[in-house]
Amino acid sequence: MKIDEIIQKMNQENFNSLIILKPENIAYVTGFKPSSISVLILKEEPLLLSSKLDLEEAHQKSHLPVEEFKSLDKLKKSLKESNPGKMGVEHSMTVGIYQKFCGDFQVELTDLIEQFRAIKSADEAKKIKGAIRIAENSFENLDFSVTEDNLAAQLEYNMRSAGSPSPSFETIVASGSRSSLPHATTTSRKVGSPVMIDWGALYQNYASDITRTIIHSEEQEEIFSIVLEAQKKAIETIKPGVKASYIDKVARNVIEEYGYGDNFIHSTGHGVGLEVHEKPSLSVRSDEKLRKGMVVTVEPGIYLEGKFGVRIEDMVLIKNRAKVLTSHPRKIIA
Amino acid sequence: MKIDEIIQKMNQENFNSLIILKPENIAYVTGFKPSSISVLILKEEPLLLSSKLDLEEAHQKSHLPVEEFKSLDKLKKSLKESNPGKMGVEHSMTVGIYQKFCGDFQVELTDLIEQFRAIKSADEAKKIKGAIRIAENSFENLDFSVTEDNLAAQLEYNMRSAGSPSPSFETIVASGSRSSLPHATTTSRKVGSPVMIDWGALYQNYASDITRTIIHSEEQEEIFSIVLEAQKKAIETIKPGVKASYIDKVARNVIEEYGYGDNFIHSTGHGVGLEVHEKPSLSVRSDEKLRKGMVVTVEPGIYLEGKFGVRIEDMVLIKNRAKVLTSHPRKIIA
Repeated sequence: MKIDEIIQKMNQENFNSLIILKPENIAYVTGFKPSSISVLILKEEPLLLSSKLDLEEAHQKSHLPVEEFKSLDKLKKSLKESNPGKMGVEHSMTVGIYQKFCGDFQVELTDLIEQFRAIKSADEAKKIKGAIRIAENSFENLDFSVTEDNLAAQLEYNMRSAGSPSPSFETIVASGSRSSLPHATTTSRKVGSPVMIDWGALYQNYASDITRTIIHSEEQEEIFSIVLEAQKKAIETIKPGVKASYIDKVARNVIEEYGYGDNFIHSTGHGVGLEVHEKPSLSVRSDEKLRKGMVVTVEPGIYLEGKFGVRIEDMVLIKNRAKVLTSHPRKIIA
Repeated sequence: MKIDEIIQKMNQENFNSLIILKPENIAYVTGFKPSSISVLILKEEPLLLSSKLDLEEAHQKSHLPVEEFKSLDKLKKSLKESNPGKMGVEHSMTVGIYQKFCGDFQVELTDLIEQFRAIKSADEAKKIKGAIRIAENSFENLDFSVTEDNLAAQLEYNMRSAGSPSPSFETIVASGSRSSLPHATTTSRKVGSPVMIDWGALYQNYASDITRTIIHSEEQEEIFSIVLEAQKKAIETIKPGVKASYIDKVARNVIEEYGYGDNFIHSTGHGVGLEVHEKPSLSVRSDEKLRKGMVVTVEPGIYLEGKFGVRIEDMVLIKNRAKVLTSHPRKIIA
């Protein structure tokens, strides 16, 4: 049982309790993802406190006991009475809540739950594959002779109809010279060339994240080949035990060799699970090692300011080597 | 100029600088809403630090000077050298960043920017009206003989095509007995009766938020009339100077008189602007007073667990009285 492993790890790190507020962490431990403030107290007898708004649904879905959340003051009072010892709180807790809540306790920041989340169980991998299938199926039969806004609308309509409650992040449709903006939002202009589409779905709270760049000219194809080579080398290098930063280095080296080092302006990838960006980070600054069960994106890109950009992003599950989970063809010429 | 007023207010409160990380606050001050980490330093000579990912767009859109954000460590070092005096930081800053960043400074939490944001300028009100028009136009000509998922997909397709980069929050389509869950997500079941739809769009970063409940039976109509009466009384009571908590009380009193006090399980409304939930809160615990220029929702509801629920939500701009901005008919019988 997941909860037993978490409690065991807490004991090893001398935490008497954990106070969990991040919805994705609560979803990981309880199976219920709250829509408004909820507090999960992890200790020998764990308890989820949910706001009235969520209470009925929390009772239906949570594996752990649920009670109504009244206020931070009341929670603080009852925690004090129970003598909570060393309490762990999340890095993502806001300093507003931290200052109000934590003054009287012995508190330490911890990413204990995020560490568990980095390694996916078979069941979690299945949900991620579900999110990939929804995203990939939604990419079929799109009408490209429209505006960027409308192309994104079609894609999101397909994902929503297939049960994804929202895109896993704001869909990027960046075409023509705007494809050189890695995080461009869509515009009301007609889709130009090349067109970079970065999109993902949610399935049972788990995310997917894919990018395809549809190319047209020879110049675009040349850049595309470099990005593809960088992606392939990075994927081939992935295995348990390798440093996450090394994967970034491998992809970056390929792009640097062709003289485009300054045009690869983001990291090579990131973990995906209950959040679309989570541990590990495949970046130069990462100090993590890859481990079996991690799911990461591999997404090198080259951005030529004022001209165009190309990014290719796939998702892999780390087993003995990288197993590519995404299946949509990378090279699309239109 | 907004920035001058902010600097003046900072001086009054003895802040030598403000460190702003919240994307909506950065959007408010600079006109540019970042998609990845950015830090706005407000002082006599304000500066926006944007990550490489956003840099090109930040240069295009920000009213304030932009430089590249390198790392928190570098920022900390340069701030130290400039002797920043009393620094204000947001309540929403994560404790992870707070502990890493703030140790060596004289720091105080402040909601100074949020206070400015609560009062909308004419230009902001116009953008909010734009977000309302997109949401309302998108509600026309929907096909209801589908699943909840698909009904939400239609609505969101229409908003996305009209330029809303995402819904302003996850669209709620809760029908049949699920309408008694105020924050229900959608399901793959066919739309039943009644159907509660809570949706909103974004326009130039500003949000809208509307709820309609389409009723069918006499029992539903009876509950609907009570909710409508509560909403009308609350709206009539709104004017500058009145306590926000009093508006909640007025709506709650009506519902209590009919014996449904325990079934109105959320607050009466909230401010809407760059965020879909912002100051002021129309709730029993609020200590704010209504002021000219605020934009709030008024959204009482009655939730009969296991049976059905009704909520009616409109948006008003506070002038000498409440000016209702939403125009879609409240009563829809199907």
